[in-house]
Amino acid sequence: MEILKQHRVHGGTLNYAHHQSASTGTKMTLSVYMPPGKGPFPYLIWLSGLTCTEENFTTKAGAYSAAAKHGVAIVAPDTSPRGERVADDPAYDLGQGAGFYVDATQTPWAPYFKMESYVARDLIEAVEGAFPLAPRRSIFGHSMGGHGALTLAMKYPDLFKSVSAFAPIASPTRCPWGEKAFGAYLGPDRDAWRGHDASLLIEAGKAAPFDDILIDQGTADAFLKEQLKPELLEAAAGKVGQKLTLRMQEGYDHSYFFMASFVSEHVAFHAARLA
Amino acid sequence: MEILKQHRVHGGTLNYAHHQSASTGTKMTLSVYMPPGKGPFPYLIWLSGLTCTEENFTTKAGAYSAAAKHGVAIVAPDTSPRGERVADDPAYDLGQGAGFYVDATQTPWAPYFKMESYVARDLIEAVEGAFPLAPRRSIFGHSMGGHGALTLAMKYPDLFKSVSAFAPIASPTRCPWGEKAFGAYLGPDRDAWRGHDASLLIEAGKAAPFDDILIDQGTADAFLKEQLKPELLEAAAGKVGQKLTLRMQEGYDHSYFFMASFVSEHVAFHAARLA
Repeated sequence: MEILKQHRVHGGTLNYAHHQSASTGTKMTLSVYMPPGKGPFPYLIWLSGLTCTEENFTTKAGAYSAAAKHGVAIVAPDTSPRGERVADDPAYDLGQGAGFYVDATQTPWAPYFKMESYVARDLIEAVEGAFPLAPRRSIFGHSMGGHGALTLAMKYPDLFKSVSAFAPIASPTRCPWGEKAFGAYLGPDRDAWRGHDASLLIEAGKAAPFDDILIDQGTADAFLKEQLKPELLEAAAGKVGQKLTLRMQEGYDHSYFFMASFVSEHVAFHAARLA
Repeated sequence: MEILKQHRVHGGTLNYAHHQSASTGTKMTLSVYMPPGKGPFPYLIWLSGLTCTEENFTTKAGAYSAAAKHGVAIVAPDTSPRGERVADDPAYDLGQGAGFYVDATQTPWAPYFKMESYVARDLIEAVEGAFPLAPRRSIFGHSMGGHGALTLAMKYPDLFKSVSAFAPIASPTRCPWGEKAFGAYLGPDRDAWRGHDASLLIEAGKAAPFDDILIDQGTADAFLKEQLKPELLEAAAGKVGQKLTLRMQEGYDHSYFFMASFVSEHVAFHAARLA
């Protein structure tokens, strides 16, 4: 883990760093906010949405005041491998910046786009080795990153104490963003997609691993009806008795302004479960 | 005033807008955050630093939580006129994005670079005409904008209830950024510069118009010694009995991360004086 840049923020330290990932075969960039004090600190993993790098969350989310107050760190990785030898696509919703937190099986994505393994294994090992972090984690994210947070939490419930999301892609097997990305990364067999769909994972779960799942969704979000469909998450949770709190936030859109308005409540939600 | 875009933030509404300015002869862009409720609201004018547009503050400062809580609006204009017919310079610290909040007298800047008149007259008239704002204002800013806030407050004390700054250029007549900009905008006669130097204005003041002036400055700011020199402000205030609170913030740099860490305290400082 090489620290590239540091900023003092709210009494703690924001680190920009990169490290070699065995899963992606590339250097992966990330940010790590450490609250004031010595640690070890429990931490949140933040997964960003389409087009984001490790930087959007750091500058726009306004989460560090709450992180400092609660004594939790926040780790925010990039949304995909990057570089000239890494496959890409001109569209904003495929390739670099659009890893969808799955392990690709298809050419030309497979060798590098292993974001599920990256987050669930390499990232956790790397940050816990390099920073004074306790092995107590929660996970949250926005849009594509909300999908990532929910699917990884349902697939690896032992890794995370809690999960929440802002405007997540609730069911990528049933929306254009997801169908395009999963078709490219996982191939045409839709059966292979089911294990990466938060609503289907919740519905298929034999247990309800979390005491609650917090979802915030803006009612003025331009992607709400065609892409996000939070009602599918709510219905899936209802079927299996997984408590899920879906808050429809009046007038909010899909931007970081929406997240910034509620991120302190998400940090508090996780802090209570990490204590 | 034409509204270009709106976002719900912390229960209020962030507006991006533009309007024709008589002073600059151009369309000037700005942001206006209105807190929840009907108003009329007192408001803060935020002046940004070099290279900024009306957008840096909106996305990075994290000020709207405090604004919503205290019921104050925040108006943040662009840092200069813009456009193809407006003079510019390849350097980041002159021309578009670097208006320095003065009325230029020199070619090629004079016809457009009238940022003092723009802020002190056109901006105030335009926002108070277009939004439910009370004629109760305070002013604050960062770096070049801290210089702007302090000089405009000292020159127009009747316009503003209070003033504060983050890492202001304390004395532009005595630092490279100021000497370059004032030489270009105001010409070689240094006597013409004195009326736009916060430290000299405070020192020359016959009255001490504000009950306190709040200044935050990071100790790890790369521009501290050569460009910012807050000790000159402190000395000037001391000479004339103007109370000034200079807080040297250990380890903070010149970025928006520094401002985001203390902006809530500045909003509270002004809200108490606008009540």
